[in-house]
Parts: sequence; structure tokens; C-alpha cells
Amino acid sequence: MTEQLRPDGSLRHLLTLETLTRSQIERLLERSQSFVRPLGESPPRSAALAGRTVANLFTEPSTRTRVSFELAAKRLGATAVNLEVQLSSRVKGESMLDTVYTLQSLHVDTFVIRDAQPGVPGLVATHVAPHVSVLSAGEAHLSHPTQGLLDALTVYQRKQRFAGLAIAIVGDIRHSRVARSAWHAFSRLGVSDLRIAAPAALMPDAEEFQDCSRHTQLASALRGADVVMMLRIQRERMGAADLPEDEEYFAAWGLTAERLALARRDAIVMHPQPMNRGIEIASDVADGPQSVIRDQVRNGVAVRMAVLAEVLGAHA
Amino acid sequence: MTEQLRPDGSLRHLLTLETLTRSQIERLLERSQSFVRPLGESPPRSAALAGRTVANLFTEPSTRTRVSFELAAKRLGATAVNLEVQLSSRVKGESMLDTVYTLQSLHVDTFVIRDAQPGVPGLVATHVAPHVSVLSAGEAHLSHPTQGLLDALTVYQRKQRFAGLAIAIVGDIRHSRVARSAWHAFSRLGVSDLRIAAPAALMPDAEEFQDCSRHTQLASALRGADVVMMLRIQRERMGAADLPEDEEYFAAWGLTAERLALARRDAIVMHPQPMNRGIEIASDVADGPQSVIRDQVRNGVAVRMAVLAEVLGAHA
Amino acid sequence: MTEQLRPDGSLRHLLTLETLTRSQIERLLERSQSFVRPLGESPPRSAALAGRTVANLFTEPSTRTRVSFELAAKRLGATAVNLEVQLSSRVKGESMLDTVYTLQSLHVDTFVIRDAQPGVPGLVATHVAPHVSVLSAGEAHLSHPTQGLLDALTVYQRKQRFAGLAIAIVGDIRHSRVARSAWHAFSRLGVSDLRIAAPAALMPDAEEFQDCSRHTQLASALRGADVVMMLRIQRERMGAADLPEDEEYFAAWGLTAERLALARRDAIVMHPQPMNRGIEIASDVADGPQSVIRDQVRNGVAVRMAVLAEVLGAHA
Repeated sequence: MTEQLRPDGSLRHLLTLETLTRSQIERLLERSQSFVRPLGESPPRSAALAGRTVANLFTEPSTRTRVSFELAAKRLGATAVNLEVQLSSRVKGESMLDTVYTLQSLHVDTFVIRDAQPGVPGLVATHVAPHVSVLSAGEAHLSHPTQGLLDALTVYQRKQRFAGLAIAIVGDIRHSRVARSAWHAFSRLGVSDLRIAAPAALMPDAEEFQDCSRHTQLASALRGADVVMMLRIQRERMGAADLPEDEEYFAAWGLTAERLALARRDAIVMHPQPMNRGIEIASDVADGPQSVIRDQVRNGVAVRMAVLAEVLGAHA
Repeated sequence: MTEQLRPDGSLRHLLTLETLTRSQIERLLERSQSFVRPLGESPPRSAALAGRTVANLFTEPSTRTRVSFELAAKRLGATAVNLEVQLSSRVKGESMLDTVYTLQSLHVDTFVIRDAQPGVPGLVATHVAPHVSVLSAGEAHLSHPTQGLLDALTVYQRKQRFAGLAIAIVGDIRHSRVARSAWHAFSRLGVSDLRIAAPAALMPDAEEFQDCSRHTQLASALRGADVVMMLRIQRERMGAADLPEDEEYFAAWGLTAERLALARRDAIVMHPQPMNRGIEIASDVADGPQSVIRDQVRNGVAVRMAVLAEVLGAHA
Repeated sequence: MTEQLRPDGSLRHLLTLETLTRSQIERLLERSQSFVRPLGESPPRSAALAGRTVANLFTEPSTRTRVSFELAAKRLGATAVNLEVQLSSRVKGESMLDTVYTLQSLHVDTFVIRDAQPGVPGLVATHVAPHVSVLSAGEAHLSHPTQGLLDALTVYQRKQRFAGLAIAIVGDIRHSRVARSAWHAFSRLGVSDLRIAAPAALMPDAEEFQDCSRHTQLASALRGADVVMMLRIQRERMGAADLPEDEEYFAAWGLTAERLALARRDAIVMHPQPMNRGIEIASDVADGPQSVIRDQVRNGVAVRMAVLAEVLGAHA
């Protein structure tokens, strides 16, 4: 696993939350919180990253995450460039690295990388020059660390603690990098009652999520939960094998107001988006008073500002 | 129809010129004029919109209008992001709004929207938070308000008045949002002799353009006109039904120097672009001394600066 | 050929190096050098081009050159917009110019143009307003002047002279704008021993490269060379006619460590990228101690800053 820290212990890359300590994650959350502004107020801005150049290399489509990183960089005064390179498909191994070396020679000092292939962000991180940082914006089904941080920040804003919380993650856990990064964050932050709930075909292998209880029914996962995190069902996988169609999925696994009532009265509802309303979540729940889905997005840009400031050593 | 004004009467959204008063339009034109610079001089710049974030959501291809809005935003100090979302085709109803809510949560406070489907800018405008503005950059065949303003500004620069002018709009009126917004503007600004001219198949229904005279021959529309506004013929519609081929269209409806001589000697020639030279307009007319087509483009960025400054309450 | 200079002798357009004098090229190289920073240092930044607008019109895919120009413009304080227009294929002649006129009316004052068709940058240059500059970012097989400058700068940084150097350009000379611009630069700068080496099918016609010696074997071109510039083989052309397959090409023309030993001990290895490792160049040579390939990229952004500052008359 690629080393994420510099010799002095500071964060250089952010590829996964799995190897961070609790205090490192807490530091990032605190810094993120300092960048949060209520909707309607101006976002924070500074020149902390003036002279820095951030390249967004996204090889999977992503409006939300790409714009979130782009705005985070610009609001800290950095120059941001977007590239539509096909890192994994078009080019392999060394020639992918040639693209990275080229950008590095143009004084790009931060790479934000999303790729469907496992290992790409880490491979880049091991090859760039010592002053260059790599941030994963989503790596295969494995890791999406800024999403994990924004999920943790969202929970903390509403609950002011992690200890003693019951958190249920529901849906396609098996293929979800969001679930894995949330699990890493919550687990490290001391959430003791972590639950994953999915149809058998979407449940991860036994060696993963070992400190989570496993639920094959939605009801038992929801009962008494403080936080319900719904995952996107990827329709393209539906209908195959023993997977149910949309309507059946909603009937068995969709989060309705009625089912949400099984959770604690003050439970919050999260979703990483994009949502399939009427499949994994009912519209009235997505837009209801317990939903913090838009907070997650707002926190996302704050987290990305914090991570950029942290790895670039900036005091913003 | 979506309310465009705030309770205090100030402009919040710009979706159509149809419901604006004459003095509101005049105010926008005056403000636009203050941003006009001659070709070769530096464009005006300010930090009036520093901290603001403008998202360009274009679901129809548009180089000119997208770049014009992007430059207008940047020259006022705003951060601009471009998105290639497919609002109307890929996603419908609620999920389109989810994309908008997401961007709003990233502190986007102005949406510039172009969409081929009627109602999309208005739908977004009714759902965004109170501090957020929506500007239409072209809505189906219905409305293109900044184009209407730039057309009016272009006329005023050359004629110094609207009263008493004879203005002929020629071509595919039926499918043209440009024609409708120009009609709204000129009509409100007191142009009394408004003429539309088109082959029967491209003439709008009788309940529209009621204060305009209708011409089924080019000559009668041009005679004595102060302003001749030619519209783009969309070739993909040509050849169908009772529509003529390119050459026939040019023979019957193309603006040649000879025909332009029917208009007043100081008549100006306008075209929203892109032009089909040799179909709706002869090249020597497009580039001739009476053409103000490039002025229209220059005025476009000034109008967009004015509208951005106006809806965002900025004193630039 | 389009005049590149203003009446006062200053550089207005950069379309080719062919018509520049030695002292004009030297001036550009000196200015470029002032923008070079070591990897890991912040790139130079200034507000010299504040208020200027640079439009990148690339009709051929180009990550490296487009980002290089974009960063050069932004680091000098200009506003940069990227356009994906299809100048040569979609539109022809006059309507291509309409796109340019439109951008010019939006106060774009510098066009950076890459096009596969000969003559496009020059055609645009002859039609824009007097205050507007056009920079070629690659014109068909004919010219890539900023690449020629960065190649010359790279050589000078390592050799501190041009006189007395032996420079070998190897590969698909016939189709290469990189080779032609390098030839123009080196020839003008006084390199006396210029060599081109290629299989017969990739050798240019006799009237070109007249001051270069021609080599149909790699070995003779390399012997005693101070600089070895390898060109990219375009695989899409391989296999046709009398051209060898990849392996055969590498066997006959690939630059290996063994072959490089034929050159001077302190010879440098250059490549404009993207590289086909294992076809025209062995990986260990591309990454070896004699390679200056990444220096070329770094110098590229410095050259583009210098050219922008020069044509826009800015003192950065």
C-alpha cells in the first residue's frame, strides 16, 4: 500500500482512509468544518494556494465530484485544469505515467484522480516527484476517501459524536467505494454499532467489513439506527442473476417513510448521489426533514478544500 | 409563468423579456451600454462578483453564447464552471433538480441554462434557494432573453431611438427563440412598425406576434425598413414538406445587396449567427457596411455582464 | 506566406520559425529562459496579461500542448477559454472565419490554433483585427513553432551553444511538423551538422531539409551526435506499403542504450511526446540519464509564456 505520509508525519497523498489514524481523520474533519458556510453565504476564499496547479484527471464521468474539487481548488486561489484523459483504457502502465510526468513538468503539483481500475491513484503516487501530491477522487470499488470524510463530517455536525452511534449502510455494499470509505472513517472514529444491509448478491466477502453486523433484511438494519446511509443501486447490474427488478428492489430495500420510522426518531438519512428516487429511496424521504443529503454535498467542497490545504501545507 | 422579480421589485431571474416593463428593459440596456468597449480596447473588468459562482449548464451545443456568458462572469470576477449535463434527455423532473440542488449546495449562486425543452429554466428557477438566480441562455423555441437585449442594444446604438422605426424579422420565425425575444423587446420598447416575414410553413401561429404585420414576400417586408434582422435557416428542416431547397430558399428569401436596397439607405442588417452564407444572407451583405452582426456579438458579452451584475445585486 | 511582424518589426503572430531571423529567435529563447523554474519550485506568475483573453482553438486532440498554452496564459494573468470547434471539417472558408470574428468580438485578442489542415492559422491571421495575434499550436505537417523553440531552448540549456553541434533527427520526418520547426530553429541558430534519418518511405522530399545530411541507417546518424531527437511513429501509418511492423521498426530504428553509445558520451536524448516506448525508443533510454524529455515539457510552458508576452507587448 502506498505510503500517504511524508517522513515528518504530515499528509502528502490521500488515497484511502484505511491507514489514517483517528487523530489524523479528526484533524481533517476540524479543518473541513472551518470551510463550511451555510447555504446563501459566500463560500470561503483565500489565496492560500496561489501559484499551485491542480489537475483533475477523471476517467469516469463525474459532475459532482469533479466540480467540487475544481471549486475547492479555485476558492483557495489555485489554478485548476481539467483533463479528459483515458488513463486506464487508452494507455497502460508506463504511458499513463508519461502523461503524469508531462503534467508534472508543467508544474502541476496536485493530481486529483478518478479511475475505474484498482491501483491507478497509488501507482501515480509512487512515481511523482517528492513535492507532488495525489488525491483519489474514487478508485474502482475500493476507495473514495473525500466522500468518507464528508460523510463523517455530516454525521458529526448532526450528532456531535461518533461513540455510541448506530449507523446502517444499505444497498450495493459489494461494489461500493463509498461504503468502504465510510466504513473506514466510522470504524476509526469509534462508531461501535456499524451495520451493513444488502441482498445476498450485493453483500461483500466475509473478510471485509468484519467489525460490521450483516443484515439481509432492511428492517433489522434500520431498527434503532441513528444514521441511515443509502447507496445508489446501479441499474445496469439489476435484473441479472438473482437480482430483483426496480420495483421488487424498492419493495424489499427502498427506504420509505414507514420504514424510516424503525430508526430513531432523530435519525438522519444520507445518500452519496446520484439518487434513483423510487428505487433505493422514496422521494419524500430524500426531501424530508431527516435528510441531510444536501449537507453532504456542501460538506464535500469543504472537505476538498481542507484536504488540498493540508497536503499542500497551506495555512488557509 | 415563473416570477422573475424579487418582492422588492429587483430582477432575480431572467427567463423571458415578455413580462418585463419598458423601464426594466431600458435599465438593463443602459447598464449593458456601460460595459461596451470598442474592438481593440480592453474589455471592462471588475471584482464586483468576486466570491460568486456561475454554472453554465448547456444541454444544446453553443460556442458563442456559452463563451459569452463565461467571459462575462470571469470579467466581473466570478468563478465560472461549465457542465455538460444532459438535463432534459438523460434525466427528468426530479433528478434534473437533484443536479441543480447539488450545484447549489456547492455554493453555485447563478445558473445559466440552455435547454431544448420548454420549461426547464423556469422549473429550475422555482426550485432554487432564494439567494440563487437563473438566467435562460435559450429555452426551446420560446425565449432567449439576453439575445433580445443585445439585439435591442444594437439597434439603439445605431438609431438612438425605437419609436418610429420599422423593423423586419425575416426567416424561420416559427421555430425561433431569437425572433420571439426580439419581438418582446422591440414591442415593449415602442417600435410601432414591426414586421415578420417568412414562407408559410415557417410563419408562427396567429395568436403570436399579433402586433406585427405579416409578410409572405421578402420585398414588402424590406421596403422602407430601418432594421433587417435575418434568422438562421436550420438546414435539417429544409427539403421537408413544402419547404424549398437551399438554392430556392436563397432565390426567394436570401438577403442580397439588391434586395437590401429596398430598405432605407441607412438600414442596418442583423443576424444572430451562426450564418448560412448563401442561404439566408449573401456574403457581401453579411460583411458589408450596413451589417452590424459583429456589433451584436460584442454587445452580447456586455449584456450578459449587465444581467449578471443586475441579478446578483452587484455595483460594477 | 503570412507576415508575422508588425510594421515596427515586433512579433505579432507566430505561425512558423522559418521567416524569423536568428536574433528574433534568440530573443524569444532568452525571454523563455527567464520563465523557466526547476521542478518543485513555483512557476513564475504575473499580472502582465491581465485583461487579455486567449482562446485555445484545438481541432486535433492535444492534452500536452493545450494545457501548456492554457497554463502559460493563466500564469500571466490572462483569461483563457477552450473551444472544441471543428474548424476544418465542420466548417469551411468563410464560416470558419465567422467563428473567429465572433470570438474577436468577444474581445478575444489571442488565438492559439491547432489544425490538421495546412493554412488555417495563416488564414485566420490575415483576417483578424490589427490588435489580435494568432499563435500556431501545430499546423498540419508543416509547422509547430513553439515546439521548435522549446527544442532549441532544451539544447541550449545543456550545451550552451549551437555552433559546432551535431544534431540528429530520427524517425518519421516526412509527416512531422516537429521536425520541420526544429530544423528551422537549429538551422537559423547556426547548427552546422544537422542530420535527418528515416526509412525511405518517411524521408521528406529532396527540396526540403536541404542543409541536412540524409541517413537511411540509424547508426551513421547517431555517430558522434551531440543531440538525438527521436520522433513519434504514428502507428496508424505502420504496416502500410513498405513500412515495417512495430517490432521490425524497433529492430531497425529504435533508440536503444547500445545504439545511443554511438553518439557522444554527453549526448542528450529528446522526444516531443507522446512516446511509443519499445517502438521508436527503448524505455531505459527514455528514462535514462541522457534523456531531457521532461525538460522539454517544462521548457514548453516557459516558451509559451514568452511568446504570449512577446506578441501581446507585455513586460512580464
